[in-house]
Amino acid sequence: MSGPERLRVLPLGGLGEIGKNMTVVEFDGKIILVDVGLRFPTAEMVGIDLVLPDFSYLRERVDDIEAIVVTHGHEDHLGALPWILKDLGVQDIPVYGGPLTMAMARSKLDEHRLKEVECVDVKEGEIIEIGPFDVELVHMTHSIPDASAVAITTPLGTMLITGDYKFDQTPVDKRPADMQRLAELGREGVLLLCGDSTNADRAGWSTSESLVGPQLSEQFAHVTGRIVVTCFASNIHRVQQVIDAAQKHGRKVVLVGRSMRKNTNIGRTLGHVKFPDGLMVQPREMANFPDHKLVIISTGSQGEPLSALRRMAHKDHRQVELKKGDTIMFSATPIPGNERAVNETIDRLYHIGCDVITTKDAPIHSSGHGYAEEIKLMINLTRPKYVMPFHGDHKRIHLHGQLAESLGVPETSIFKGENGLPLEITAKGAKFGKKEQAGVIYVDGVDLGDETDAALRDRRMLSADGIFVVVATISEQDGTSVAEPEVIFRGVPYSQDAERLLGDLRGAVESSLADAAKKQIREVALVQQVLHDDLAKFVYDRLKRRPMVLPVVVEV
Amino acid sequence: MSGPERLRVLPLGGLGEIGKNMTVVEFDGKIILVDVGLRFPTAEMVGIDLVLPDFSYLRERVDDIEAIVVTHGHEDHLGALPWILKDLGVQDIPVYGGPLTMAMARSKLDEHRLKEVECVDVKEGEIIEIGPFDVELVHMTHSIPDASAVAITTPLGTMLITGDYKFDQTPVDKRPADMQRLAELGREGVLLLCGDSTNADRAGWSTSESLVGPQLSEQFAHVTGRIVVTCFASNIHRVQQVIDAAQKHGRKVVLVGRSMRKNTNIGRTLGHVKFPDGLMVQPREMANFPDHKLVIISTGSQGEPLSALRRMAHKDHRQVELKKGDTIMFSATPIPGNERAVNETIDRLYHIGCDVITTKDAPIHSSGHGYAEEIKLMINLTRPKYVMPFHGDHKRIHLHGQLAESLGVPETSIFKGENGLPLEITAKGAKFGKKEQAGVIYVDGVDLGDETDAALRDRRMLSADGIFVVVATISEQDGTSVAEPEVIFRGVPYSQDAERLLGDLRGAVESSLADAAKKQIREVALVQQVLHDDLAKFVYDRLKRRPMVLPVVVEV
Repeated sequence: MSGPERLRVLPLGGLGEIGKNMTVVEFDGKIILVDVGLRFPTAEMVGIDLVLPDFSYLRERVDDIEAIVVTHGHEDHLGALPWILKDLGVQDIPVYGGPLTMAMARSKLDEHRLKEVECVDVKEGEIIEIGPFDVELVHMTHSIPDASAVAITTPLGTMLITGDYKFDQTPVDKRPADMQRLAELGREGVLLLCGDSTNADRAGWSTSESLVGPQLSEQFAHVTGRIVVTCFASNIHRVQQVIDAAQKHGRKVVLVGRSMRKNTNIGRTLGHVKFPDGLMVQPREMANFPDHKLVIISTGSQGEPLSALRRMAHKDHRQVELKKGDTIMFSATPIPGNERAVNETIDRLYHIGCDVITTKDAPIHSSGHGYAEEIKLMINLTRPKYVMPFHGDHKRIHLHGQLAESLGVPETSIFKGENGLPLEITAKGAKFGKKEQAGVIYVDGVDLGDETDAALRDRRMLSADGIFVVVATISEQDGTSVAEPEVIFRGVPYSQDAERLLGDLRGAVESSLADAAKKQIREVALVQQVLHDDLAKFVYDRLKRRPMVLPVVVEV
Repeated sequence: MSGPERLRVLPLGGLGEIGKNMTVVEFDGKIILVDVGLRFPTAEMVGIDLVLPDFSYLRERVDDIEAIVVTHGHEDHLGALPWILKDLGVQDIPVYGGPLTMAMARSKLDEHRLKEVECVDVKEGEIIEIGPFDVELVHMTHSIPDASAVAITTPLGTMLITGDYKFDQTPVDKRPADMQRLAELGREGVLLLCGDSTNADRAGWSTSESLVGPQLSEQFAHVTGRIVVTCFASNIHRVQQVIDAAQKHGRKVVLVGRSMRKNTNIGRTLGHVKFPDGLMVQPREMANFPDHKLVIISTGSQGEPLSALRRMAHKDHRQVELKKGDTIMFSATPIPGNERAVNETIDRLYHIGCDVITTKDAPIHSSGHGYAEEIKLMINLTRPKYVMPFHGDHKRIHLHGQLAESLGVPETSIFKGENGLPLEITAKGAKFGKKEQAGVIYVDGVDLGDETDAALRDRRMLSADGIFVVVATISEQDGTSVAEPEVIFRGVPYSQDAERLLGDLRGAVESSLADAAKKQIREVALVQQVLHDDLAKFVYDRLKRRPMVLPVVVEV
């Protein structure tokens, strides 16, 4: 390597947004990827299934990637793994993480038939040498078991990427974050802290996960009918607490939703969920129990279109038919952007006659991300030289920076970054480098496309104003029209004089063709171009809209 | 009229939803419409501009409509007026409301060139005889001046539609709701109360509008740079309070956004806004003043796509360029559904380096809708025989019903309705009647269409999976293919073997045509049908997607 030793931290996702976290850590020409997350599309992204970080930067660097390290098993940290490996065409990059995280990774890779990728379970305290990096996972608490911070040591010093975390002093599994190790790292000196900003805008401390269980139990005590609790399927400790509350009140438990059954199964195998035999009941057995002896735990806390709860609310679920007297408890809050879907689901439930209890009615949820005081605790424990807030939109990154300043970190040591902007650290200091390509890649069916994806752009245009297809049949000899032009439209706003419009449009086609023939324009592609331009103008003049105009010229 | 006297209250919008309020009140064969509101489309409603209540019920009854009464000038109570009158083809139905409401109505009607519609300013206390109805507007407080409840008296008794209201004890114009008149109506006996449910889920009392001004002033005191305040343009008393705070701190005021200038203008003409000459500055004069001498009042508090603030946040506004040091105050909260647009705008502002103050940071907004205790006050003042909660989704209607019950209204006298379900009252009692058509009508460009609108359905399909256009040229003589089929696709998810797919697809067209020719299928429409079915199947088998397949058969 030429020049001085340099650590380069390039976030490709998760900055200036909430979701699709992914960071490239480079030293001595070698790369570790920390997290490979995705985001879900917004309503304007018509026909898009998933949103990935733009990983173009890695295409030329595939051979330099030594490893992928995943902090925990949530989609926004793990979900892009199979897509990226498949697209890069490699299966020989090892993936490291905690046992639950790796179980989830393997399940994803299997679905994509990436059987050769090695997923390595990392033990606590274990230090893994990966090229020029020493890598260690530090146990943290979050809304999924097995969440870790990643400490990466190079000759320049140690950097810490926290992943998502909270400092839960009384977690359900009685294993608080490894504050001893964080403090030790701080004593030894942390060069750079890249910390979770998700709740930088909330003052104080998050509430402990273990306070949620008693609250759920308290709510169960008042209910005489059937209970449905919805929460994230990956929040395995929450599921455990719902199970415990059910057992306490003599109710059987039914798991509904594919991911709820899958995650609870994985969780049980790895010892994160425990329940006695006979407590769990299959959906088809529900009829054997009276309503007051049942708790259904269901997916759909975010109002997701195909989720179990949303189907129930639309009276469209195969196994569960909701009715007056049922009580639905939302043990989750809407992720920003999902508010409308959640509210619509809740309103459907009220329409059916169900009772609905949300976190506005009782504290039956706690966030998995630390609040402002926890972010401060992280900074005070690790005493970093440089701070680069991660996992947050610009607002939260800004607020995280303010928290660091309030603890005495100099403003010049706080780097408020954005996706694609690398932080470069040498023995002399730290500064942002030249911006690299960053953005989004869409998963559209089974293929990947980027923001300029023609198919997506076309669909946006089609969805706004529809399409006119014009078929002109011309003579191979002289380019004149030999059959009446066909004009078909779809999705174009209804117009009362459609017949007249079509007639006029046919006339416009004929005269455009006649013009082109007179000008000796004979090549089909050129005739189509002329036809397109003439008709687009004609249609806009008549409709004040810009549907797609698709001319087809057939030579006979 | 045959049968006993009957009052019929048919809500066509505003129940089971928030928005597009509209109610048909019928007695003795005659109709009054109370409110004619609209809603804005959600992101899935591709290419739709506005959403109106389905007013099909009125088409056969146009001649029976005696009047339209509008409670206040907000879009969800007034916005559908021109569309409905235009579609029904009538201009001789008089419109009644307070002076500001009527000024806004006239402005809308003018834009649609409905110059002949008579808009009648109603004075407080005035009783208007309209057919068999005595109609009176009762002054209420809300987030726009000139808000009223509507009392409609028939021989069966008096019904009251509250419109949107709060019981603001210290409104900015020092004119609290006319509680005396409400109490008097209650003493005389109110048959039916149709009340605002918007904040039925909030305990306690809403805060007074006049408490917002001092809070804004307090915030202004801390700011050394330029201030931008965004709020609803129709919240004229809020605008007044921002102007007052600016004046107090020696700042000039700039109005930005078309509706902000228009509403403030109307408000000043009618005496609702007052400010000294010289305080108001034109946008182009801003450069003459230092930042700390300026307050910009802007539209865009909901993150609306083309609003002034959204443009500023995207550095795309002609007159105002935001910069580090500017402070943007959101004197409004997001209407449910707008959260994402508002958050995106805020994040853009942070990215520019602006400071942002929202209602989470300081109480610089108050709701225009009464909370639970105010809903109770309304019921206790008017002592209605029957209660039918209005203006709310199913949840809020349910909660409003619970509030009424808690005051002793018998459950059997509380009618939780839905759009299209008429409440029918005779001397004998009240009950829901047979459901009438209700739903939505879309404004799509300049035309109206309903939920089953083919254009919209097509656009949804196009937006999800794109379109294949297949052009086959067949011989008029024997139906055989005489030119190579043309296959064009747009918006179909990109596929790596597109060329091969197109080749195969052409082959499928040829064989489908050959089949049809063999079976003596010759009529073009039938050939197209066969082609469509064969190709749709082929495409689905290959892509696992269902793009629109549009076959065009040209005979030569």
